[in-house]
Amino acid sequence: MHLLFLGTGTSQGVPMIGCDCAVCASSDPKNKRFRSSLLIQNDRQVVIDTGPDFRMQALAHRLQQVDATVYTHCHTDHIMGFDDLRRFCEITGTSLPVYGSQFTIDALQRIFPYAFDSNLKVSTYVRAQPHIVAANGEFSIGNTGFIPIDVPHGNTPTFGYIILDRGVRKAAYLPDCAALTDSMAGALRDIPLLIIDGLREQPHPTHLHIEAAIAAGRRVGAKITYLTHLTHNVSHQERQKTLPDGVFLAYDGLRLEL
Amino acid sequence: MHLLFLGTGTSQGVPMIGCDCAVCASSDPKNKRFRSSLLIQNDRQVVIDTGPDFRMQALAHRLQQVDATVYTHCHTDHIMGFDDLRRFCEITGTSLPVYGSQFTIDALQRIFPYAFDSNLKVSTYVRAQPHIVAANGEFSIGNTGFIPIDVPHGNTPTFGYIILDRGVRKAAYLPDCAALTDSMAGALRDIPLLIIDGLREQPHPTHLHIEAAIAAGRRVGAKITYLTHLTHNVSHQERQKTLPDGVFLAYDGLRLEL
Repeated sequence: MHLLFLGTGTSQGVPMIGCDCAVCASSDPKNKRFRSSLLIQNDRQVVIDTGPDFRMQALAHRLQQVDATVYTHCHTDHIMGFDDLRRFCEITGTSLPVYGSQFTIDALQRIFPYAFDSNLKVSTYVRAQPHIVAANGEFSIGNTGFIPIDVPHGNTPTFGYIILDRGVRKAAYLPDCAALTDSMAGALRDIPLLIIDGLREQPHPTHLHIEAAIAAGRRVGAKITYLTHLTHNVSHQERQKTLPDGVFLAYDGLRLEL
Repeated sequence: MHLLFLGTGTSQGVPMIGCDCAVCASSDPKNKRFRSSLLIQNDRQVVIDTGPDFRMQALAHRLQQVDATVYTHCHTDHIMGFDDLRRFCEITGTSLPVYGSQFTIDALQRIFPYAFDSNLKVSTYVRAQPHIVAANGEFSIGNTGFIPIDVPHGNTPTFGYIILDRGVRKAAYLPDCAALTDSMAGALRDIPLLIIDGLREQPHPTHLHIEAAIAAGRRVGAKITYLTHLTHNVSHQERQKTLPDGVFLAYDGLRLEL
């Protein structure tokens, strides 16, 4: 199983429109962050979240196949590229399995109603096969398993996911997360790889910040922690140097073998 | 007044995901097409349509200021970048005037409800000041005037716009358009510059194709016709050579002085 980071940025991406700070003006590709999204490459290819950059991400990595999508929540930076999944429906001639909470699937249906219309016969439109994920409702896509974890993130119901390969817990992905609750800490205990919202240096009401994300990794006993969903306040090269052992900044295009 | 083409592509953009045709594989920048969008640069800067590529388009042209947006219709390729207007609200500290038909504004409100919530106080969110455009309801943004034209485009209510500079008709922009009706031909009579849906070689039920777009320009007596909203079937360099005098393919980054 491989994980490919399609995007590691927060809602505005990096560079940010109309900003000339050192990170936004940087030519370092590791300081260029599309909206957060993760591709899981196993016997099936699964994308977690499809923000507005999804087409650019698919082109950057020459994606030819997406077998299913899984959503953490329905904020715009995680779903507005949904229509660009149409090509994968067109290529395969079938509808695409789409997993998310009832709240998230309802939002997708409100925003992209045609995709959920089973009478629609246009072969070039995105066609979704919705799968409602319940809290604690584990599910599998081929050999890849997903255990949803309820995550605090403002008023929007949000999941993180523990990712399993043939039943073995390999990683957890929580790109939007305001805190590590006791219940989350229990579920994540001894996870080998924690990928978690690190946002920026300063605390934020609906996201972890870097120190809190590092502390979360330590608390659950993660062997390796990757910080994602980063703003333009975080300079990759500079900040990576000062992180503790076993803690890394994720970047667009990073591919991990698990 | 200048017009800057931020995007000249159809709903899937060019290159298209998972396609290796000669145009999609081309390194010619004129064969790379973001979703259709036009920037009007006058005493105010106005964007017509903000599809999912809007952030990339704003970055490509280092946009520092957008004073208003105008919408042709609510298909995903014209609106899904709406949230990325947030930066222009943040920079100015005010809400953004947003113009469109009742149908289009209703769709924006359904999809981005927080942007229309006048109680919302978060300064980094997009905040819209909706302006309903009626058929034949001319309006102005600074020195730039807009005359909406009802355009056939499948089942979705769609406008094209005649663009005026201090009361003088300068251009018309109809990126999505299935036909030239008699009423449209009357409104567009002797327009100096017609920018119109050209899609591809083959006819399409909800778009003009290249020959029909050329015929539309001839019928209204346009001095110059630019074709936009182009698919990957159109190779810029090859097709431009065979177009009649006064007819051109638009491309991303093209800037016209009017």
